[in-house]
Amino acid sequence: MDTIRYSYKQLEQFCCDAFVEFGFTGEEAAQITDVLLLADLYGIKSHGTQRLVRYHKSIENGSVKVDAKPEIIFETPVSAVIDGHSGMGQLISVYAMKLAIKKAKEVGISFVSVRNSNHYGIAGYYAKMACDEGLIGISTTNSESIMVHTNSKQAILGSNPLAFAMPAEPYPFWFDSATTVVPKGRLEVYNKENKALYDSWAVDETGAICTNAEHVLECIDGKLGAGGILPVGGKTEDTGSHKGYGYSMIAEILCSITSGGATSNHHKRVKGQGAGTCHSFIVIDPEIFGDSQAIKDSLSVFLQELRDAKRADEQIPIYTHGEKEMQSFKKHLEEGIDVNISTVAEMVKMCEYLGMNSTAYLGDVDISGAKQGTYDKVYK
Amino acid sequence: MDTIRYSYKQLEQFCCDAFVEFGFTGEEAAQITDVLLLADLYGIKSHGTQRLVRYHKSIENGSVKVDAKPEIIFETPVSAVIDGHSGMGQLISVYAMKLAIKKAKEVGISFVSVRNSNHYGIAGYYAKMACDEGLIGISTTNSESIMVHTNSKQAILGSNPLAFAMPAEPYPFWFDSATTVVPKGRLEVYNKENKALYDSWAVDETGAICTNAEHVLECIDGKLGAGGILPVGGKTEDTGSHKGYGYSMIAEILCSITSGGATSNHHKRVKGQGAGTCHSFIVIDPEIFGDSQAIKDSLSVFLQELRDAKRADEQIPIYTHGEKEMQSFKKHLEEGIDVNISTVAEMVKMCEYLGMNSTAYLGDVDISGAKQGTYDKVYK
Repeated sequence: MDTIRYSYKQLEQFCCDAFVEFGFTGEEAAQITDVLLLADLYGIKSHGTQRLVRYHKSIENGSVKVDAKPEIIFETPVSAVIDGHSGMGQLISVYAMKLAIKKAKEVGISFVSVRNSNHYGIAGYYAKMACDEGLIGISTTNSESIMVHTNSKQAILGSNPLAFAMPAEPYPFWFDSATTVVPKGRLEVYNKENKALYDSWAVDETGAICTNAEHVLECIDGKLGAGGILPVGGKTEDTGSHKGYGYSMIAEILCSITSGGATSNHHKRVKGQGAGTCHSFIVIDPEIFGDSQAIKDSLSVFLQELRDAKRADEQIPIYTHGEKEMQSFKKHLEEGIDVNISTVAEMVKMCEYLGMNSTAYLGDVDISGAKQGTYDKVYK
Repeated sequence: MDTIRYSYKQLEQFCCDAFVEFGFTGEEAAQITDVLLLADLYGIKSHGTQRLVRYHKSIENGSVKVDAKPEIIFETPVSAVIDGHSGMGQLISVYAMKLAIKKAKEVGISFVSVRNSNHYGIAGYYAKMACDEGLIGISTTNSESIMVHTNSKQAILGSNPLAFAMPAEPYPFWFDSATTVVPKGRLEVYNKENKALYDSWAVDETGAICTNAEHVLECIDGKLGAGGILPVGGKTEDTGSHKGYGYSMIAEILCSITSGGATSNHHKRVKGQGAGTCHSFIVIDPEIFGDSQAIKDSLSVFLQELRDAKRADEQIPIYTHGEKEMQSFKKHLEEGIDVNISTVAEMVKMCEYLGMNSTAYLGDVDISGAKQGTYDKVYK
């Protein structure tokens, strides 16, 4: 797999300038970039620069309205429902999470749900926003239909990630995970890297296990009428398929049902129209349980007990959620981020589209090894 | 597998009278019985009458204090922390969920967490309490250490189920599921039925996959120093192990960390002392999102779309969560409940212990086919 290493600063400059070229303000572009590149810093390469092309195409085809502003359409002291008016998911979501944080600080718990948004990046970015202020942060989103639920061969639910973050020392607990066994971005990465999928990840349009990333992406794209990614827990109830299906349902209810928005199976793929993505943002102030410092301390102790458990293999450490990401963050800030050559090729095409000088941003790169067609054929 | 069929009324009479003999009031005994037998009615046989022996032993050895009353030790308009003082988990939990429902009706969302309780039966009973009043109900509990988390061979986390219920027609969405790939009760049932476990369910004290239910139960009992049940998602990150581990963490945080109680790995197994089990009860009034009838309607439509999806196998229906349980409820109320002969043998021994006439309650049953030792050797 060919990659090119860039510093965080280089990628930040590229993304900020590109989003300004797309029509966002400097402040908005910086916010979108911050969400996007936190994924690369955390080592979640499915949701970093490799997703740039998707946002590019969504803006180009009018699914993302650059000028849209989120609007509160219903509100109580503990809650709000926001209409995103098909704006950029990251901007709507930062607005919504800030509102949830404000309310939780006032009343102890809050729940803000959002409809008519677009893809918002990593769910964990928003959970982290609350965690950074000493609060418990939760976020979910739905997506285009991608999950083939138990006994079905047709995807109805989205990847529907659930993120949960809570302060602890030396690392917070930071969990961010699709309720599918893997997110679609992982398939995009496997496709770019020409790797075969694990045989418990996905099914084709007949409902049979499929290890071809490109084929499953075509299923998800809706061209074949069925097929998609399995829930965590796999294909049958004996391995817990109904559990992953259930977690996905919880995420779906928290975002699309509460907001009165589109469920995953009603997301739009129409030029000029927003996807209709829905999100939820839940914040809990630990003060509502008494001594928040004692609560943080007890979580820190428990996380250490988990890391100190007897290892199945002495050579393989036990992690708590968020620990790998913190290590990755430090490493990538210091050493730079390796970007897949196919993604670099997409970024070069973005420069051409936007009239930016790709060499000035990305260097004089050899992209002859890039997988063909990933720019033109974006899997929605 | 030998079973004896009893009517719901017969089992109800037996349980109510037995719990009164244990020292509970008639009202308390009826409440405990209602939680216990809903599991059998719903077809969750791991948590019904087959668990009676565990409660019996817990009361006998003083882990469950029959006279204890729950106490609110911290409270805000949206929250409460309750100390269960080692009472019967079901009674503490009904009290806590009633408080959560009351608060949610007043302020929109509520969160009540509980420490120093004991096993509370099916988490979904409490979620259903809220759902029956038109609200979204959520409940989690921790348990003795049972889950071997990713890269570990030692169980630290509990089975940590997560239950979520929300009104819909013709069935509510009712999800109740251990975050382990299977609950311990399933192993108890497989042990009584002498069946081999699936090879993705559990590991032994060396961290190797183990299909022997009795051996894994001994691991969980703490005798072998390691081993237990895997998270949903299995043993490795490639199949999503870290996801089930993460869901279990969320449940653990919601109950033991927020309540300042014992995490699963600090549950007590000491005669005369409560287990230290913790629970959480979260209630959301859909009114905080606007039109609650429209929200219920949209969930009902979505659940029907899931059931109507293209089937992987035309002969196998697609279910939504709670649907099987509603069908089971009706069937078992009408046709009776099949109780495993080993469980009947345990109930006969309970009668001897309590001075009840077993024949009057259970009939003149032949229990010679019962698995030996399940009464004396209760896996905590």
